[in-house]
Amino acid sequence: MAFPSDLEIARSATLKPLDAVAGSIDIPSHLLEPYGDDVAKIKLSAVDELADRPKAKYVVVSAVTPTPLGEGKTTTTVGLGQAFSHIGKKATVAIRQPSMGPTFGIKGGAAGGGYSQVVPMDILNMHLTGDFHAVTAAHNMLSAVLDNHLFQGNASGLSQHEITWRRVIDANDRALRNIIVGLGGKLDGIPRQTGFDITAASEVMAILALSRSLPEMRERLGKIVVGYRPDGGAVTAEDLKGAGSMAAIMINALKPNLMQTLENTPVLVHAGPFGNIAHGNSSVVADLIGIRGGDYLITEAGFGADMGAERFFNIKCRASGLVPDAAVVVTTVRALKAHSGNHRIVAGQKLPEALLAENPDEVHQGGSNLRKQIENIRLHGVSPVVAINAFPGDHPSEHAAIAEIAESMGARSAVCTNFAEGGKGATDLAQAVAEAADEPSDFQFLYPSEASLREKIEIVARKVYGADGVDIAPAAAKQLDRYESNGFGNLPVCIAKTHLSISSDASLKGAPTGWRMPVREVRASVGAGFIYPLCGEMRTLPGLGANPAAHEIDIDADGNIVNLS
Amino acid sequence: MAFPSDLEIARSATLKPLDAVAGSIDIPSHLLEPYGDDVAKIKLSAVDELADRPKAKYVVVSAVTPTPLGEGKTTTTVGLGQAFSHIGKKATVAIRQPSMGPTFGIKGGAAGGGYSQVVPMDILNMHLTGDFHAVTAAHNMLSAVLDNHLFQGNASGLSQHEITWRRVIDANDRALRNIIVGLGGKLDGIPRQTGFDITAASEVMAILALSRSLPEMRERLGKIVVGYRPDGGAVTAEDLKGAGSMAAIMINALKPNLMQTLENTPVLVHAGPFGNIAHGNSSVVADLIGIRGGDYLITEAGFGADMGAERFFNIKCRASGLVPDAAVVVTTVRALKAHSGNHRIVAGQKLPEALLAENPDEVHQGGSNLRKQIENIRLHGVSPVVAINAFPGDHPSEHAAIAEIAESMGARSAVCTNFAEGGKGATDLAQAVAEAADEPSDFQFLYPSEASLREKIEIVARKVYGADGVDIAPAAAKQLDRYESNGFGNLPVCIAKTHLSISSDASLKGAPTGWRMPVREVRASVGAGFIYPLCGEMRTLPGLGANPAAHEIDIDADGNIVNLS
Repeated sequence: MAFPSDLEIARSATLKPLDAVAGSIDIPSHLLEPYGDDVAKIKLSAVDELADRPKAKYVVVSAVTPTPLGEGKTTTTVGLGQAFSHIGKKATVAIRQPSMGPTFGIKGGAAGGGYSQVVPMDILNMHLTGDFHAVTAAHNMLSAVLDNHLFQGNASGLSQHEITWRRVIDANDRALRNIIVGLGGKLDGIPRQTGFDITAASEVMAILALSRSLPEMRERLGKIVVGYRPDGGAVTAEDLKGAGSMAAIMINALKPNLMQTLENTPVLVHAGPFGNIAHGNSSVVADLIGIRGGDYLITEAGFGADMGAERFFNIKCRASGLVPDAAVVVTTVRALKAHSGNHRIVAGQKLPEALLAENPDEVHQGGSNLRKQIENIRLHGVSPVVAINAFPGDHPSEHAAIAEIAESMGARSAVCTNFAEGGKGATDLAQAVAEAADEPSDFQFLYPSEASLREKIEIVARKVYGADGVDIAPAAAKQLDRYESNGFGNLPVCIAKTHLSISSDASLKGAPTGWRMPVREVRASVGAGFIYPLCGEMRTLPGLGANPAAHEIDIDADGNIVNLS
Repeated sequence: MAFPSDLEIARSATLKPLDAVAGSIDIPSHLLEPYGDDVAKIKLSAVDELADRPKAKYVVVSAVTPTPLGEGKTTTTVGLGQAFSHIGKKATVAIRQPSMGPTFGIKGGAAGGGYSQVVPMDILNMHLTGDFHAVTAAHNMLSAVLDNHLFQGNASGLSQHEITWRRVIDANDRALRNIIVGLGGKLDGIPRQTGFDITAASEVMAILALSRSLPEMRERLGKIVVGYRPDGGAVTAEDLKGAGSMAAIMINALKPNLMQTLENTPVLVHAGPFGNIAHGNSSVVADLIGIRGGDYLITEAGFGADMGAERFFNIKCRASGLVPDAAVVVTTVRALKAHSGNHRIVAGQKLPEALLAENPDEVHQGGSNLRKQIENIRLHGVSPVVAINAFPGDHPSEHAAIAEIAESMGARSAVCTNFAEGGKGATDLAQAVAEAADEPSDFQFLYPSEASLREKIEIVARKVYGADGVDIAPAAAKQLDRYESNGFGNLPVCIAKTHLSISSDASLKGAPTGWRMPVREVRASVGAGFIYPLCGEMRTLPGLGANPAAHEIDIDADGNIVNLS
């Protein structure tokens, strides 16, 4: 019998009522607002109401530098959450909401996989409770207010050539990347060039993910910089009188969403900031609530440990005040083989035959990436645990090779078969995580807030990415000066670079050394609270392929979604 | 003491649990899906499950030709629904979901007013359960698929100069009316001119409002025509493989939303098609469910009886198969005085002093509009009832003048004070509606489906609008020929014209005669199932004013929305 599809497994799940799911981690039902039968929002009053409880152990799940296929980080996060119940502990899982753009593109949904899924996966992948739509609406409300401000006379003196605020859409629509608006007649606005980014890349999404309360979110929205005056002074959403309406649109979006895994483990799904140009972690509010229920809160960070985990430590933990107790680094045999540099993996194509042959030596060759990512966790004083996400074609010798690498770095490791077996396939990992989290935490930020922006960039590039140094282009240098003079110098940095290498060059595998990081441009998300240097081309709105999922997804005669993976 | 604001009244309301609200019209709670504490969706299975019950009397609420201020049609609809409980009957109200664009523009929300409101009004006016967002996402999914289709080689042979499908956004954003997309490099799509309409104007919204079931919605989505080949043949959403994903996005949106009035009368809120270029009525599904509970279903149609009610009869009732038992025509003293042609009313400005003076003669002068709108109801074999929506500055002699006009037309009438008094201020209206609905119905469509498109336009223009005839521009004639040859000739027509006159010229008040209707262009909503001739300029994306509501709406320290009216 063939292994069932994700959708088949998800449809056969026995879901518990959400008040029972919440009750399993002692969140009382009066804090829930049901949204349909299978999702509930958690009221924001939960943050204060539960604040006196002891904190659960806080575990972040990160990964080696992934292949374009992804290494099953969400699957491992879900499986680990499920596993704790098999060793007599209670866990809560926190993940990001999937973006509808990629769901209809090549990627499919993002609910985990096999017997480690968040369910119902069609609801998770489609709208959920509308938070992404609220972000889109709030972002575009400010865009409309901005263009109306220009149309009504531009009282702020905003320079038309220095407008940084664009529009957003949650769809893979390349035609909207670069557009001219305001064409038509005199009453149809001021013509100018601009464009759309994907909703996940919106600064409003990052604000949603980093705010601890409604008043804080309101304040952050007001601080959004939409552009600059000819004298270099910043013009904000507050200046344009747009932030209040944005906050009104976002009230419900700030409440985290409660779902469950196939084994009824509680899952908080909230926010989904773009991993490249934003910090790529789920929300602070979800973690502030989740940490007050159960024994472990398992939260996922985007991409490899150089990306998502670094931002988790230096941006998200700085915003939340929470301190992590352990960090999981998910790896696969195929990823480490790819880091040997011997193979080329392309999304949407079959794995090369040569990569599937038993070859523990090649795993050791590519192990430099795992070593560096373990080191990146240690840089922050946190205990690393290596999760070996097993695939059917793996060989025991290859798993052993990974375990040897972990051991050589003093890190615990465990083979995970939770895709095929559910939580009981990740009990070794849960045990290792429990041990790591019991070690005394020595958590520290990589740099102090007071360091200059240039110093912060240099520290991340050298220490985390392994660069020899940073080359800042003249335009980028001017931008850094502008941000410092506008008073934004105390913000952390969120370096926008490829997620397919620890370096800023996607073609460099393993743990690249002997390279310098070029910074061609620096942007500011002042409301979200970070400065993001761009190292290389960053695509902020994906396109659809020749045969996108959008052509196949449909509904059947019973009104169920089909062909969603 | 000043009369409290709508928001103050709404906040002081005592809401009932929604299962109790549904229970009051015998809708069992297993058919409800709660969305937060104050809204529930009703499962689509309700249509079949309740199909054997007797039907409630079906009452449509329409109006005289309104001033730019509106004449309180939603307030009267809500008040009438509330009033039935005061005369020992049970009623359900069905209204459209407000559009967020105008909410942040000049108009404010659309929840009724005073003591005749749907609550909570901030939820009604903001997102509700995300149906509008689903329409936006589904519409723009097809747009992305279309532009990707061009980018990937345009296998359908769609002519780039004959693309009729645009994008939509639920915001007042004039800068998006006319845009050029696809700029940038070779990988950024095919450059072409297009634009955005407001979400309410989307054909997908009209499809949502007119479908009786998910399979029907899926079929209608597939029939959407996105443009034409050089030979004049239509290219559909099905041809582009976009309709399945649209349906998947829209599954939950097809479930009507249950809310309540200040007096706990059940309210179905569902869909919100643009009144100018679409049929402007709430959904067929909501009415199919609402008609199976209680004694009366009160459903609102957009604008004057020439617009919303005509489309209710000839488009919505044709789609639903339901037969109306009575039609309310809401009027105000100020509207009829304005129809005398002696005054100029501008939205956002104070009423002219002269209009406020006691002047029953002027009411009689403007009464021609009310007479014609009563006649427009009678044309369809339905009993009309005139609702006189009383304002504080009205004079009894003026109300008497309206009653005389109604009586001279053989129509019942009643003065309504439900804005100030709630349901008990509309019991006379409820009594009159009950009597009218008890008369035998002689409902008939204005024209048969088999008539040609030109004949249908001519019939509506002459019989409903009072035109001497129709002048079809050459371009429009070619379009009509194209639609007939593509097999769309059997569809009803939805004439897009100003709502500020029964004629197609907004400056003509009363009941204009001696004019001919110019048709400059004809468009086709084949999925929604109507052809819409354009008579005059139709703005399909509003803009923001110099001092829009968006500048004032905000949240307070407790997280409540403020300055939303």
